Amino acid sequence: MKAVVYYDTKDVHIEEVEEPKVQEGLVKVKVAWTGICGTDLHEYLGGPIFIPGDAPNPITGQERPVIMGHEFSGVIEEVGGDVDGLNVGDKVCINPALTNNLHPDPLYDFYKEGTFIGLGCDGAFADYVVVPKENIIKLQDSTSLKIGALVEPTAVALQAIRESEMEFAESVAIYGAGPIGLVTVLAARAAGAKDIFVFDLSNERLEKAKEFGATHILNSGENNPIEYIHKFYPDGVDRTFEVAGVPITLEQAIQSTRPRGMVTIVSIFERAIDFNPMLLTTSGVRISSTLGYEPDIFEATVKMIESGQIDPSPMITSEIELDEIIEKGFNQLIEDKKQAKILVKLSGEE
Amino acid sequence: MKAVVYYDTKDVHIEEVEEPKVQEGLVKVKVAWTGICGTDLHEYLGGPIFIPGDAPNPITGQERPVIMGHEFSGVIEEVGGDVDGLNVGDKVCINPALTNNLHPDPLYDFYKEGTFIGLGCDGAFADYVVVPKENIIKLQDSTSLKIGALVEPTAVALQAIRESEMEFAESVAIYGAGPIGLVTVLAARAAGAKDIFVFDLSNERLEKAKEFGATHILNSGENNPIEYIHKFYPDGVDRTFEVAGVPITLEQAIQSTRPRGMVTIVSIFERAIDFNPMLLTTSGVRISSTLGYEPDIFEATVKMIESGQIDPSPMITSEIELDEIIEKGFNQLIEDKKQAKILVKLSGEE
Ligand SMILES: [Zn+2]
Ligand SMILES: [Zn+2]
Repeated sequence: MKAVVYYDTKDVHIEEVEEPKVQEGLVKVKVAWTGICGTDLHEYLGGPIFIPGDAPNPITGQERPVIMGHEFSGVIEEVGGDVDGLNVGDKVCINPALTNNLHPDPLYDFYKEGTFIGLGCDGAFADYVVVPKENIIKLQDSTSLKIGALVEPTAVALQAIRESEMEFAESVAIYGAGPIGLVTVLAARAAGAKDIFVFDLSNERLEKAKEFGATHILNSGENNPIEYIHKFYPDGVDRTFEVAGVPITLEQAIQSTRPRGMVTIVSIFERAIDFNPMLLTTSGVRISSTLGYEPDIFEATVKMIESGQIDPSPMITSEIELDEIIEKGFNQLIEDKKQAKILVKLSGEE
Repeated sequence: MKAVVYYDTKDVHIEEVEEPKVQEGLVKVKVAWTGICGTDLHEYLGGPIFIPGDAPNPITGQERPVIMGHEFSGVIEEVGGDVDGLNVGDKVCINPALTNNLHPDPLYDFYKEGTFIGLGCDGAFADYVVVPKENIIKLQDSTSLKIGALVEPTAVALQAIRESEMEFAESVAIYGAGPIGLVTVLAARAAGAKDIFVFDLSNERLEKAKEFGATHILNSGENNPIEYIHKFYPDGVDRTFEVAGVPITLEQAIQSTRPRGMVTIVSIFERAIDFNPMLLTTSGVRISSTLGYEPDIFEATVKMIESGQIDPSPMITSEIELDEIIEKGFNQLIEDKKQAKILVKLSGEE
């Protein structure tokens, strides 16, 4: 089968590889669609980060090269021994998080040592992938497999809401209208935010945020987002999400938030920043962050999508073939700020 | 009367000033003891910070010069009109926090606009001070007025415990064994911490921390505090308090804390630091901070001191006269790390 294989920084090839084999407790999935994630771009441009470096990944035991792709859906092709309740032909999406299951709290476990299918071991930019039965979430027959490939990034946003300790009918600000910023708008709406401010440097992205349910959008390169928020909320909003990953937005996020509110860092910062802790001391604003998702959040994401509470499908801006992943995938995402989520078509089943 | 008057950086004089006059809603207190605070030192060395700069303080309307001193106790000398339940001769300590009372949550109010008696208006390095009736807390007749002057810094530590969201029987680490570090040990004990690690560069301070109830002390200049904590708590402690105010201790504090635990910034950082938000993202550690205290925490501090649950009196390392405040007060605190709390004797009543 064909697969996107990661060797090193900018050293990613589309190759013919052997089909993975099902084993006890494992399930072989015929991949339908796989999304390209910001994490994939980070690995491509500056990795290996989550992909194994010099040593095998401690959880999966796999060394490089690794088949990329962790946001995916498909149909069960074959089932290993000791797998109940999953059948050939089932439509599924996959929670790619892998941990050692040492703590009762799976996310706690993840912070100590965790990885993802498609980073710490072979993933789904390939026709087939074999995954542990525990990572499979069944979709309803009527659920589109395209939307199934969007469950993972949407789950990141739902987890961010939980980490923010947001309560019903609170006000929200989001710095950054990239793909995760957009699903954070959806998640904040689903959680009952009364107002959702979105800030970005790109007017096109801001328009998209409005489509997703932002109540107020502002180009923060052209206008002062803090002054803007203070017009509506003199003390600041209740919860702010930092989804841009640059020094200025963390500072702005804190200044946008009311005393004793919460700033939740969703982005991956690539380096240390200049930061004055007095910003917190003099405002009482607290900071939390998010990484991955708890299993119940992943399942809730599927349910909310299937019930229509959340529809992330407008984030798909492009659908490409596996062969095109470098040029029309990675490079396109780097160059074209209009791109949000690019899906790679494998079987292409709906 | 004599008073310590702040004009500017290192421009503080002991002068003869007029006695303040009582007015409607105000109470005149004959000061017994007033503690020197780290904040006073900051004002002396690099102020005005909380003391009015070029404009009058927006809450008190007072301009510089200002009589310093915000940690104090005394006896009621005279009561203005419209003051009930307070009588001449009552032993009292004073909550120096002043706000505009615009929000139901007084601390919320404080974050928007707050100051302290002794910073935003005349304080208690003087024989007499006049304060609003709302700021007076009565002490029992049997309570020592010396300990009354320690209520304010102790309240800072109790508020820090609240901001940390610490729960009973959790483990705690404290970076910094200065006066506030020491009362944080007391407060953590009072809140039911099962283990209290204290780190500092001075062995003398660490010995003092042990007297206050630290279960583990370590010189963090000579040993690695994170490795030390991980010997006892492989995942890190539940709550960590940053009471040192230097870049390295904030980083160490985060690395000492378990996933989803809390680091609470208690110190005042003087400048921006190099900080990588990924420290939070990859650990799930959250950050809160503390500034001042809620009124109920101030009252709880008095009650816990009077019931013997908390005894901050061993933090007093020196008692001096008002005339000696620069040499034996400010300068001594700067030079001698063995000093914790220096009390200035006014009436000296016990
Ligand atoms: Zn992803
Ligand atoms: Zn103080």
